Amino acid sequence: MDFKKTEEQELLLESLRELLTREMPESYLKECDEQHQYPTKLAKALVDNGFSLLGIPEEYGGTPADILTQILVIEEIAKAGGPFYLFTTAMQIDDMLTFGNEEQIRLTMEHAIKTGDAAFCLGITEPQAGSDDNAMLASATRKNGKVYLNGHKTFISGADRAPYILFFTRDVNAPNPHKAVSSWWVPMDAPGITIEPIHKVGTWVNSACDVYFNDVEVEEKDLVGKEGEGFMNLMKNFEIERLALMAGCLGWAECAFEDAARYANQRVQFGKPIGTYQLTQEKITNMYVKIENMRNMIYKSCWEKDNKISVQISSAMAKYYCAKACNEVIDDAVQIFGGIGYTSDHRVSRLWRDARVKRIGGGTDEIMIHILGRAILKQYK
Amino acid sequence: MDFKKTEEQELLLESLRELLTREMPESYLKECDEQHQYPTKLAKALVDNGFSLLGIPEEYGGTPADILTQILVIEEIAKAGGPFYLFTTAMQIDDMLTFGNEEQIRLTMEHAIKTGDAAFCLGITEPQAGSDDNAMLASATRKNGKVYLNGHKTFISGADRAPYILFFTRDVNAPNPHKAVSSWWVPMDAPGITIEPIHKVGTWVNSACDVYFNDVEVEEKDLVGKEGEGFMNLMKNFEIERLALMAGCLGWAECAFEDAARYANQRVQFGKPIGTYQLTQEKITNMYVKIENMRNMIYKSCWEKDNKISVQISSAMAKYYCAKACNEVIDDAVQIFGGIGYTSDHRVSRLWRDARVKRIGGGTDEIMIHILGRAILKQYK
Amino acid sequence: MDFKKTEEQELLLESLRELLTREMPESYLKECDEQHQYPTKLAKALVDNGFSLLGIPEEYGGTPADILTQILVIEEIAKAGGPFYLFTTAMQIDDMLTFGNEEQIRLTMEHAIKTGDAAFCLGITEPQAGSDDNAMLASATRKNGKVYLNGHKTFISGADRAPYILFFTRDVNAPNPHKAVSSWWVPMDAPGITIEPIHKVGTWVNSACDVYFNDVEVEEKDLVGKEGEGFMNLMKNFEIERLALMAGCLGWAECAFEDAARYANQRVQFGKPIGTYQLTQEKITNMYVKIENMRNMIYKSCWEKDNKISVQISSAMAKYYCAKACNEVIDDAVQIFGGIGYTSDHRVSRLWRDARVKRIGGGTDEIMIHILGRAILKQYK
Amino acid sequence: MDFKKTEEQELLLESLRELLTREMPESYLKECDEQHQYPTKLAKALVDNGFSLLGIPEEYGGTPADILTQILVIEEIAKAGGPFYLFTTAMQIDDMLTFGNEEQIRLTMEHAIKTGDAAFCLGITEPQAGSDDNAMLASATRKNGKVYLNGHKTFISGADRAPYILFFTRDVNAPNPHKAVSSWWVPMDAPGITIEPIHKVGTWVNSACDVYFNDVEVEEKDLVGKEGEGFMNLMKNFEIERLALMAGCLGWAECAFEDAARYANQRVQFGKPIGTYQLTQEKITNMYVKIENMRNMIYKSCWEKDNKISVQISSAMAKYYCAKACNEVIDDAVQIFGGIGYTSDHRVSRLWRDARVKRIGGGTDEIMIHILGRAILKQYK
Repeated sequence: MDFKKTEEQELLLESLRELLTREMPESYLKECDEQHQYPTKLAKALVDNGFSLLGIPEEYGGTPADILTQILVIEEIAKAGGPFYLFTTAMQIDDMLTFGNEEQIRLTMEHAIKTGDAAFCLGITEPQAGSDDNAMLASATRKNGKVYLNGHKTFISGADRAPYILFFTRDVNAPNPHKAVSSWWVPMDAPGITIEPIHKVGTWVNSACDVYFNDVEVEEKDLVGKEGEGFMNLMKNFEIERLALMAGCLGWAECAFEDAARYANQRVQFGKPIGTYQLTQEKITNMYVKIENMRNMIYKSCWEKDNKISVQISSAMAKYYCAKACNEVIDDAVQIFGGIGYTSDHRVSRLWRDARVKRIGGGTDEIMIHILGRAILKQYK
Repeated sequence: MDFKKTEEQELLLESLRELLTREMPESYLKECDEQHQYPTKLAKALVDNGFSLLGIPEEYGGTPADILTQILVIEEIAKAGGPFYLFTTAMQIDDMLTFGNEEQIRLTMEHAIKTGDAAFCLGITEPQAGSDDNAMLASATRKNGKVYLNGHKTFISGADRAPYILFFTRDVNAPNPHKAVSSWWVPMDAPGITIEPIHKVGTWVNSACDVYFNDVEVEEKDLVGKEGEGFMNLMKNFEIERLALMAGCLGWAECAFEDAARYANQRVQFGKPIGTYQLTQEKITNMYVKIENMRNMIYKSCWEKDNKISVQISSAMAKYYCAKACNEVIDDAVQIFGGIGYTSDHRVSRLWRDARVKRIGGGTDEIMIHILGRAILKQYK
Repeated sequence: MDFKKTEEQELLLESLRELLTREMPESYLKECDEQHQYPTKLAKALVDNGFSLLGIPEEYGGTPADILTQILVIEEIAKAGGPFYLFTTAMQIDDMLTFGNEEQIRLTMEHAIKTGDAAFCLGITEPQAGSDDNAMLASATRKNGKVYLNGHKTFISGADRAPYILFFTRDVNAPNPHKAVSSWWVPMDAPGITIEPIHKVGTWVNSACDVYFNDVEVEEKDLVGKEGEGFMNLMKNFEIERLALMAGCLGWAECAFEDAARYANQRVQFGKPIGTYQLTQEKITNMYVKIENMRNMIYKSCWEKDNKISVQISSAMAKYYCAKACNEVIDDAVQIFGGIGYTSDHRVSRLWRDARVKRIGGGTDEIMIHILGRAILKQYK
Repeated sequence: MDFKKTEEQELLLESLRELLTREMPESYLKECDEQHQYPTKLAKALVDNGFSLLGIPEEYGGTPADILTQILVIEEIAKAGGPFYLFTTAMQIDDMLTFGNEEQIRLTMEHAIKTGDAAFCLGITEPQAGSDDNAMLASATRKNGKVYLNGHKTFISGADRAPYILFFTRDVNAPNPHKAVSSWWVPMDAPGITIEPIHKVGTWVNSACDVYFNDVEVEEKDLVGKEGEGFMNLMKNFEIERLALMAGCLGWAECAFEDAARYANQRVQFGKPIGTYQLTQEKITNMYVKIENMRNMIYKSCWEKDNKISVQISSAMAKYYCAKACNEVIDDAVQIFGGIGYTSDHRVSRLWRDARVKRIGGGTDEIMIHILGRAILKQYK
């Protein structure tokens, strides 16, 4: 066994840390957050320095990298308090490279290389179809050689800045329900599209929107991949995306923990640093243990993925454990900071608001238990 | 034993519920919250209808009531999603009726009767004196028959709307440290006072401010109570205030729970209401149990107080248990609501942000363990 | 509201405490436990002094008492470390007084008055019918005017000392499955009955046995109550029995807690009593809080029962919460005692072994969630 | 990184599994447990097949192996339900190889090779010196060229079968308290030694005894290592011993988990395997997650040790997390088994009793928090 990063990975992370110190100071993060502003400048810096397109083949303008390395980059951005979830661009793009046509790929890569951002938002979730994608109602109707898209999508991240949307529809009459979903490449300025912002508790630098499609006209060529195989497209990389999200949760937990540990050493109450009280030491210990568990779990799952071992269970387990542990660690950090942990005077309050959604999006805790319980028990039949 | 409310209490609560339905619709609460606005109109309605001055003697314009009844009113406001913590006016005023001079009482009652709000904010906490009041540095210096107040107070609720502040100072040279603290009645527009808002994660309808005193001139007559007895004044009602805060936590938990239970019955995923899944039933059960525990604990402690039984342990226990349980119940409610629980589309997200501070303010969880552990163990010596 | 015991209840408990000090010293309890011996002498003392037949009408030789008073007696026995579950005789008997015939009642009361013990054990559980009574397979077959009973019962408490068994059978062909269960009064020395002891982790003073019925011959007159109404008989008092079991869990938790609190004050490590360390204070606080919650929950549910308010939810809630809380409190007590908490040198180790089964018997934690989740959600439809 | 075992390790474990299937059937373990009997035959088989002396240099009759490999062996024995803690012989012996004289080493190795057992028990703990070794009172007094040992040792494992004891004394007058402890090699049949068994809740195959030394006469040559350096001797391998204990806890958790998972697939209630209920799936998921965390944490710490990286924090963290997690996993397994999980009909009940002590011995949970909290915070100063 071997639990250490390669020298190459260490160097990459060191150069990333330097970049983040320069381009992502806390003042900038705070400002973007308060203004509900996407960090354009940071995204540009990350792509210009080669971090955003790690894992994308060179022929498309990326830099080859294994999953573990990609995940370490995500973790590092989060560890510096950053909105890591914006920088999984490569993972989002990867689907398009596999299933998109030449033109879609060209548009995607041009945008990515120019901005560091994804050219398209993902139009999947609907009000009645949260955990249950099979309840999707958005439709594609053929008439006179055209295709008309209708539906109400919700919680669509980045819908107000992406030039395109990948709009998922379901054919309610499809004989095989697993082959009923298709996805379409649609410019966001197409007639018939309305966007309304949703007001979230956190993750303010990334908008979430309601997107309404009212007879939006597209053509057959706008289909992404094959008809009815939209789910399969979706599923291809979702395990890696889960690991990326959780690497970010790990980074946030590390960020909050280290801030809290330093504060516990400095903050004096009743004549002693609060770190000398057992109740603080207990919190610090439990936070440290959870972070260690998160780290091991995520790295191991990445290693499995890189070594072609199934991560069906390990990636779901990471999603389940890390989302919860991240929230617990950050909540403890808030408690150690006391009053100021409840204010924007310290970034821990932003992490606290931002982290909560990670137990909901990308598969709720409850869905994870459903997946894991059955998959694990199957091994003991 | 007897676990039911009196008919009188039931009638009072019924009339309160009617008032709240009329004067405190969710739309109003949401608006106040989003605008960071104190609910002036609601405060007025509550005092005009006799709810805010329950417990204040008739001679001062109040309505006599036992602690339990006062607490039931607080709970009811919170159960309707309201910012209950604004309506502990009577409790805050009570101190002044005991220790204030005639003029101070007159000003206090006039303001209360007119607005339903407290005429004064409490200037206690300082940056270095959070849990530890003995670390207070604000000072009162006599010179030429005048008194000059200096110091930096933080997390002062309502400092930007209260016409007066009760400013606490400590005499660092006092021979007896328990007799070193004094409090002063100071108009907020006195020269030398600066106010700066603090940006909190929640409880936005009640500002928190930094308040700086720079040689603020007052006179001996502005002393509240006797010199050096400021702590004793503070301590007189703090147990009741703890119970009031926790009654509000109870109400919020009930509010979030009932919303979540109704939603679990309606929200369908995978063809069935989510309330039919065991993981939801488990959450619902645990939430219900915690609320029952909170309710019993608070009512019993009020009953003890009303019956002149010491509530030293029971009120601290309520503070400790209910603040945590309230946060846990609301967090579970957020999880049941899923995505919309993370948005301002549902009040549960506001409760989630607002409740967090209750584990910090009014004595942190950790301070409560410190108080309780020692007090309980003393009984078994 | 009113949270205090009546003077009468206080006097009763005082006299019980005196009796227990005399008749139930720890040395006796330890000896019975180590010898796996039913405490005959103690049972006799309890019935002779009127405690075992509280709640039984005077005409049968009992002493009328409300549920709360009965429960307080159970709690007190447990609080002294006693095997309280042996002393719910009155509750077990109560069913027989309602459904039994004259002869069955006579035999029951004679035995109870003489020994303090129940004349019959309950033959309900079967290997495949643990939580699910509808899976019961024991049968009653009529042939030639006789009735032949067959089946395998398991975890039958006291089967090796009770002179009779109440043997439950199910008619698998009954049209209404809710009217398929009957119960029979059978002497344990009837031909065809075999008994085998089960080796449990704890509760050693009360045996648990496998009981095999092989063509055991009885007559129609041995039917208890009406045919097919066995479930209803069972259900009549099960809520009260749940409360009794939980009152015992409360008492055990109090016993372990008080022992641990005293020990924490005395035991010195690193030059100070361990009670001065925050980690101990935290345990003590959490234990105390849980006990307070248990107490409130149980007393309130008894008060409801005594006042003809439904306890469907409150008794299940008590079963769920108190069984878990009792185990947690005792586990914390073991940890405070350290090494000796793991040995028979201290009764806390016996309580630890004995309490574990309370989360399984009388409805598992999981069954309680199933019952509670559905019943609670129904209220919000 | 690399998370897989070497082929050599896999082969070793496979051959161990074969041996255990043959020599350590559950019937044998149950019998030893019920008879409170050390498993002599098994110990012999393990040493004869080379498993017990892994890590001992060849010159002494052992087989070189890194820490990770040793730990994997311990885990495997525990995973088969075995009393792994008996088979850390090599680790116990290792101290003697470093600090013992030629004769002591000879006696130790002869006994180990012949029986697979340690030749000596460790006489450290005293009633008043549990967590705090500095409170040790046992003394060594010189008189007429002889040394007289006195003291009361408690919880001495294997004192009734080991031919020797390593008896620790403290010089209360030593100027440097860190150089006050010495250890002595004493035959257990020396005059003045009395042994009394302690009755534990579990781990019955390994006795724990009170050992009283009353003027036991030894000579200077019986000192092990240098005078006053007993603590350092003790400390040399304690980190590895912690990892070994925790590898056993991991194995026990795996044993209980796999049994419970298989049972959940088979056990039918209400017409379906209980594994199809979400409440069971949740338990299974949480158990699996904890085991994964334990495994990663322990393997990583071993890898660190093998690579000369400090394991001060990681081994204490493993002790803290794994002892708790092991107890939680096994407790969940008991709950899944229901009634039979509370009886000797299934080994999970034995694991439940046995595991509890792991949160106490080898450094309590609380001591671990004390060590970890301070060591972690130091890194953030």
